Amino acid sequence: MSGLFGQILGRGPAAAATSDESWLAALLEVETALARAQADVGLISRADAQAIELACRSSSFDIETIGREASASGNPVVPLVRHLRQAVGEPAGDQVHLGATSQDILDTATMLVARRSVDAILVDLARAADAAARLAAAHRDTLMAARTLLQQALPTTFGLKAAGWMVGLDESAAHLRRVRDGRLAVQLGGAAGTLAAFGSDGPALVAALAAELGLSQPIIPWHTHRARIADLASGLGIASGAAAKPALDIVLLAQSEVREVREGDPNRGGSSSLPQKRNPIAAVSARAAAAQAPGLVGTLLATMAQEHERAAGAWHAEWLPLRSLFVATGSAVAWLADALEHLEVDTVAMKANLELGGGSLTAERLVAALSPVLGHEAADALITSVTRSAEQGNTPFEIMLWERISESPEFSDVDVDDLLDPRGYLGSAGVLVDRAVAAHAAQAAVEGRI
Amino acid sequence: MSGLFGQILGRGPAAAATSDESWLAALLEVETALARAQADVGLISRADAQAIELACRSSSFDIETIGREASASGNPVVPLVRHLRQAVGEPAGDQVHLGATSQDILDTATMLVARRSVDAILVDLARAADAAARLAAAHRDTLMAARTLLQQALPTTFGLKAAGWMVGLDESAAHLRRVRDGRLAVQLGGAAGTLAAFGSDGPALVAALAAELGLSQPIIPWHTHRARIADLASGLGIASGAAAKPALDIVLLAQSEVREVREGDPNRGGSSSLPQKRNPIAAVSARAAAAQAPGLVGTLLATMAQEHERAAGAWHAEWLPLRSLFVATGSAVAWLADALEHLEVDTVAMKANLELGGGSLTAERLVAALSPVLGHEAADALITSVTRSAEQGNTPFEIMLWERISESPEFSDVDVDDLLDPRGYLGSAGVLVDRAVAAHAAQAAVEGRI
Amino acid sequence: MSGLFGQILGRGPAAAATSDESWLAALLEVETALARAQADVGLISRADAQAIELACRSSSFDIETIGREASASGNPVVPLVRHLRQAVGEPAGDQVHLGATSQDILDTATMLVARRSVDAILVDLARAADAAARLAAAHRDTLMAARTLLQQALPTTFGLKAAGWMVGLDESAAHLRRVRDGRLAVQLGGAAGTLAAFGSDGPALVAALAAELGLSQPIIPWHTHRARIADLASGLGIASGAAAKPALDIVLLAQSEVREVREGDPNRGGSSSLPQKRNPIAAVSARAAAAQAPGLVGTLLATMAQEHERAAGAWHAEWLPLRSLFVATGSAVAWLADALEHLEVDTVAMKANLELGGGSLTAERLVAALSPVLGHEAADALITSVTRSAEQGNTPFEIMLWERISESPEFSDVDVDDLLDPRGYLGSAGVLVDRAVAAHAAQAAVEGRI
Amino acid sequence: MSGLFGQILGRGPAAAATSDESWLAALLEVETALARAQADVGLISRADAQAIELACRSSSFDIETIGREASASGNPVVPLVRHLRQAVGEPAGDQVHLGATSQDILDTATMLVARRSVDAILVDLARAADAAARLAAAHRDTLMAARTLLQQALPTTFGLKAAGWMVGLDESAAHLRRVRDGRLAVQLGGAAGTLAAFGSDGPALVAALAAELGLSQPIIPWHTHRARIADLASGLGIASGAAAKPALDIVLLAQSEVREVREGDPNRGGSSSLPQKRNPIAAVSARAAAAQAPGLVGTLLATMAQEHERAAGAWHAEWLPLRSLFVATGSAVAWLADALEHLEVDTVAMKANLELGGGSLTAERLVAALSPVLGHEAADALITSVTRSAEQGNTPFEIMLWERISESPEFSDVDVDDLLDPRGYLGSAGVLVDRAVAAHAAQAAVEGRI
Repeated sequence: MSGLFGQILGRGPAAAATSDESWLAALLEVETALARAQADVGLISRADAQAIELACRSSSFDIETIGREASASGNPVVPLVRHLRQAVGEPAGDQVHLGATSQDILDTATMLVARRSVDAILVDLARAADAAARLAAAHRDTLMAARTLLQQALPTTFGLKAAGWMVGLDESAAHLRRVRDGRLAVQLGGAAGTLAAFGSDGPALVAALAAELGLSQPIIPWHTHRARIADLASGLGIASGAAAKPALDIVLLAQSEVREVREGDPNRGGSSSLPQKRNPIAAVSARAAAAQAPGLVGTLLATMAQEHERAAGAWHAEWLPLRSLFVATGSAVAWLADALEHLEVDTVAMKANLELGGGSLTAERLVAALSPVLGHEAADALITSVTRSAEQGNTPFEIMLWERISESPEFSDVDVDDLLDPRGYLGSAGVLVDRAVAAHAAQAAVEGRI
Repeated sequence: MSGLFGQILGRGPAAAATSDESWLAALLEVETALARAQADVGLISRADAQAIELACRSSSFDIETIGREASASGNPVVPLVRHLRQAVGEPAGDQVHLGATSQDILDTATMLVARRSVDAILVDLARAADAAARLAAAHRDTLMAARTLLQQALPTTFGLKAAGWMVGLDESAAHLRRVRDGRLAVQLGGAAGTLAAFGSDGPALVAALAAELGLSQPIIPWHTHRARIADLASGLGIASGAAAKPALDIVLLAQSEVREVREGDPNRGGSSSLPQKRNPIAAVSARAAAAQAPGLVGTLLATMAQEHERAAGAWHAEWLPLRSLFVATGSAVAWLADALEHLEVDTVAMKANLELGGGSLTAERLVAALSPVLGHEAADALITSVTRSAEQGNTPFEIMLWERISESPEFSDVDVDDLLDPRGYLGSAGVLVDRAVAAHAAQAAVEGRI
Repeated sequence: MSGLFGQILGRGPAAAATSDESWLAALLEVETALARAQADVGLISRADAQAIELACRSSSFDIETIGREASASGNPVVPLVRHLRQAVGEPAGDQVHLGATSQDILDTATMLVARRSVDAILVDLARAADAAARLAAAHRDTLMAARTLLQQALPTTFGLKAAGWMVGLDESAAHLRRVRDGRLAVQLGGAAGTLAAFGSDGPALVAALAAELGLSQPIIPWHTHRARIADLASGLGIASGAAAKPALDIVLLAQSEVREVREGDPNRGGSSSLPQKRNPIAAVSARAAAAQAPGLVGTLLATMAQEHERAAGAWHAEWLPLRSLFVATGSAVAWLADALEHLEVDTVAMKANLELGGGSLTAERLVAALSPVLGHEAADALITSVTRSAEQGNTPFEIMLWERISESPEFSDVDVDDLLDPRGYLGSAGVLVDRAVAAHAAQAAVEGRI
Repeated sequence: MSGLFGQILGRGPAAAATSDESWLAALLEVETALARAQADVGLISRADAQAIELACRSSSFDIETIGREASASGNPVVPLVRHLRQAVGEPAGDQVHLGATSQDILDTATMLVARRSVDAILVDLARAADAAARLAAAHRDTLMAARTLLQQALPTTFGLKAAGWMVGLDESAAHLRRVRDGRLAVQLGGAAGTLAAFGSDGPALVAALAAELGLSQPIIPWHTHRARIADLASGLGIASGAAAKPALDIVLLAQSEVREVREGDPNRGGSSSLPQKRNPIAAVSARAAAAQAPGLVGTLLATMAQEHERAAGAWHAEWLPLRSLFVATGSAVAWLADALEHLEVDTVAMKANLELGGGSLTAERLVAALSPVLGHEAADALITSVTRSAEQGNTPFEIMLWERISESPEFSDVDVDDLLDPRGYLGSAGVLVDRAVAAHAAQAAVEGRI
């Protein structure tokens, strides 16, 4: 997307795939395919189809003119068909758009635009997930604090955090692939959805058109049955959400007081007034783009209520939100991929932050270790008491714990140093990383990416 | 759902499946399954697991008490576990909830609630789609006007309209089945998602828990990776939209000036002040319920941005919108099923309305028939001119058309009566109905419904 | 808005007021005003301020270049200031943007854009309300059926319906005027909101800047306190809703089976394939544009949660939804104004439709008239019974009623003909129209429009 | 709100004010007021009005029964009126609900519920703003780091941060007061909005009813003109956003690595598995509740498109979102007030965090001080270079800066120590706090709160 804000909120190839130019090209592609399909089933002559195809390819149609004229009829296909008929000339001009309704052309073109846009988004989703996978593998055993409700809770690894990002991105990619492969269908029904103008050739023509364009063939026309649009919208919304999650984590990890990661792209992140700042611009931009999505998906779900055979407004209401959703999702994912590919990880800071709370991060483990002796409640109370005292006083948690434990002979078997070592309380973090990364690699192999 | 508005906006079994009582039962079911799974992998004794299971089954926990206590810790699992430990007593009480975090239990219980709620919604979706299928088959050849932008456009059949409703409902059912069968997963990670408290038994325990509950096993814990919730929400939103579409059509067809359908349930539709009214209450209620969904889905997409290992608010923010979405979707679908099952179709009114415009509904066909003689543009201009004159004057369209056609010998082959007969301009309406109904029946057979 | 869809969904002057060109002009206007204000309070020299003003006015800055460079810093002000400094040259160039942060400039420019956009929308709201007022006055006593739940209910007048549209539009205009006059404030705080770079001159400088631009002066900087944006968004959302309501009514009244109104603009409403159609394109387009608004408002409410002194994404997330909301609202209102100004009212059709139900539309009145004799319940039951019989049989409601009434001497005083006359059951419709139109005229006089 | 989640997401008096019991009481209050008003204008006898009032006050109506019966007619007023007529008995029973339509009663009751709910929310908004005002005054000069994009940027004061919260809350309270005082209007129009059943007494009756209930009198009935609902919804959404902002800041400031604030309520914040944790539960709950609002506001804006004289679904669709929005906003504000009233501020941690970056937080000031000698660009480059070197190496910023400055005699007048002192670069922070707190106190005095 161009313009003042376009490079921030409309980054990446999905924006280009949904430009006016791309949409116009898709409309012409559909008119071409319709003519070819009609020649296939014998509704028009092969020569007429070729004349139409030639005009679609070689003519130039002015977007602003078509847009202006569109306001008389309510959609841009009406003026486009008029200009196209003129470009084709007699006699083949009369065969342009034969028996189709404007929505047939625009809906089918939207499916083509969707396919290209989704493909572009999938490339960036894969780029982001691959980067997360590399981080997960490289930092499989890098200790850091797990944070719940933004409080340090337990030790974890940066590898597991990155693996979580990766799985989230891969899941949303799978969702979008499902939509792309199964839900993008040709639209052809004529004005009433009966294929009236094609006599008994309607079904064969729909099949031929679907084959021409590589789209699915619907059971019946879906002019006012918009689950395909809603499914696409949901997939985009989920991908935006999957991008927003790691972007949020990056912004939090990059805080001045945390400094566990930093965006490494040296060309980005400067401030107009504050030379010392290094803003995590890619993650911030990903969050900003992703925040557009939920409202847009809501709009596209609300527009599913469409009247009778063609809606009195709800169809027109889809165009801009759908385009904005492609752009927003594409931009969120592209920025996130950038952030992840250039992410600098500060393992020293991770370790230092982990030690901020003394040994209190393994409190859960301590309770478990003391429970066989004291019972769960008493063990919990003891550790809570040590924690609270350590917070308020000057004595570190470890020292206070040691004093309490060594008081009593019943704890003679308890090895406090061992219990306090965060490396010993990582559970299955490593195993989880391994299997997540393996699943990612297997999927990448299926897609031929590696 | 109960209360003043509950029977209107919270109708159907999905509301019951998401009540506080159902949610509490699901929480206890998860604690039971966790104990059993821990016994399976040897983390606790079989006797302790049985004691926990017995307490979960036989104890009674007060929802209001738990709800009140929940506000101290931020979720209802903390007080529930405390009460459950007391109910189990020593020594097995200490083994309750062992190594789990509140979110493990609540998320997994949500999946159980989701499965039951989705099952209930699928029953009503099938009921609605079956009713639509019967209407489609019965009215395969019932003529009516197709309306685009709420203007009569061409002839169609009521069978094709009903088939469209059916396909939309079936598509959304397929979506929900996909989510139910593939995306409802157990949650178990412990406080940091590392399965720390289970030593090296974590993955085996997750597998055992998933087997106990019949849920999927995730690659890694999904505490802050919420695509499963978003996917579920989207499926519900799409089902609401699929219900809103026929409800809108019914309301429009039932208008006093159209009267092509009427809701036939004699117990419904009266007015407090207007005895003559027969309001299409079921369709109106379906629309009202469905209108709740888009905003709720938007909220659940926005809450995908969750911090680190457990979110500082966004997780809590899911609970009510998700419940409201189950209730709204269930209610929309239940009301629509009612409306469709009791729908009275007035074929005489359909025919009468079709004839309102004289023969102008076959204008497209007339243009096509005259184009070989006049060329497309001149034919279009002629018919447009006849239409406009008929609208403004007193002479019916057919008469004016006949006058124009008979003026000129070039139209000697044109059979105006035939061209004006709407039955001759239905295209593939019948074929489309047949294949849609067949697909529906095939799917119903797969599901064992017929 | 330009492009393929722009004339349909981005019609009217609000779209132009929010173009990239307009936003760039506003940014330069703010930099100019900042320099002038700084000269006013003595922070920079008058000569430097003049040099900056001159460069802002005479230089040309390339939107695409700025947009591209914006992605390095996260907003377009950073590169614009760089280019502007170069255009100003030494030594005054160093005084450009002195002590301001990017958000100061962009937020203040947004307020200027908002004022112009709101002004444009107010013009079209007034145009629409004036047209509705003319319809209300002209049709003060034009009988038509009131419809509740899309069922004919009672008689009303078209004047009252149009007056309702007018009041709704006037209310939303009042809302937007309140926001424009009271909530559009200058933003100036510097990077931290402390006005640090201005020493003790900060408050005086803010006051001077507000005076330069005719904007309010906030109590403190509002970098992350976004109620002003949310209030603006809400006002726009409500205006969209106020436009959607009459657009929906028009579309319903224009139905082929109702035909009580028609859009009279002869240049609009044609169909690509159906020459007989006259689509209510203006109302349809108004509905489509208005449908964008709710989701966008939701996004702008969600982005109110902004971190600390400047947000990490939520601010950037405002830009496009706010612009889209200006465009959508402006377009909805512009289309509606067109529809209302060209609305053709068919009073004959209104009367004919009113008579469709026989006299049943005055059923409420009949019940009231018979209640003194029969009691409310028995009267209600009698009229309901007559209505149901009339619906099912061939005897009209009036005849059946007459038969029932004349059976019994207790009804000797009941004048059935009078009770059935819809003109006698309009209540205060005329009075309500009069006072609504008078209020509208009074407001128009206050605004100097008449 | 009760139930499992109610105390977390439905806290505070607004939830009680919108319970089924409250809504039922409001419905009866409206029926009473209608009878009294009808007696005032002479439509019914004073004795009948008193009988109705007595029955409304003394009878008990079962919510579940009414709710169940409501599904036959589409709203709870129909069965309530039936039960009420029975409770009143003959002859006055026939005068119950005379000439009103269900929506008259329910809409007016909603206004009463809204007034009480808004009043409750205003109390908690004042409580929160008062707490913020106390924090602002107490910490007028408490140094802390300002953070932009979550990076430390400049020094500021905690007083200014708290003052910002206060202003945001006060602004949203002003919005809600405006809605409460000016936009809550009685609804009375009868079935068609014409006041038909009241002869010529309609306007007088509306005025009398408005006076009885202390509500505004609308120009005309607003059955399908829903700007009042949308305005209310927007005000609630903005209040939720104003609560979400400080809640977000608190959660960020309470992070383990920042620790500048802590929620001080000792009864809250424990974790089920982690005894050392002190979760900021109140702020987390406020965020969770506030996150519900944007989607609900969107729904209530979308339902503004209502058909003709009474809507076919969109009115029913308002009920639950409006109630949920009262509950969510009330809960968000109540939790925030709790968080602010118990907030513990750690000024030592604030100072320590401010010093994390060495002196780099005054980089902007350094650039300004060096610019007269070097020019802006060279000064900016120098400080940027020092910052980057300090980040990468072991030498602190101050030392490196000192070395650069002392190299050159041109900086002989530059006092580095002074430039690095954050207290000297607070701009107008104190003045801004003073005037914000004064404005708050003045408003509180106007409201009689102090």
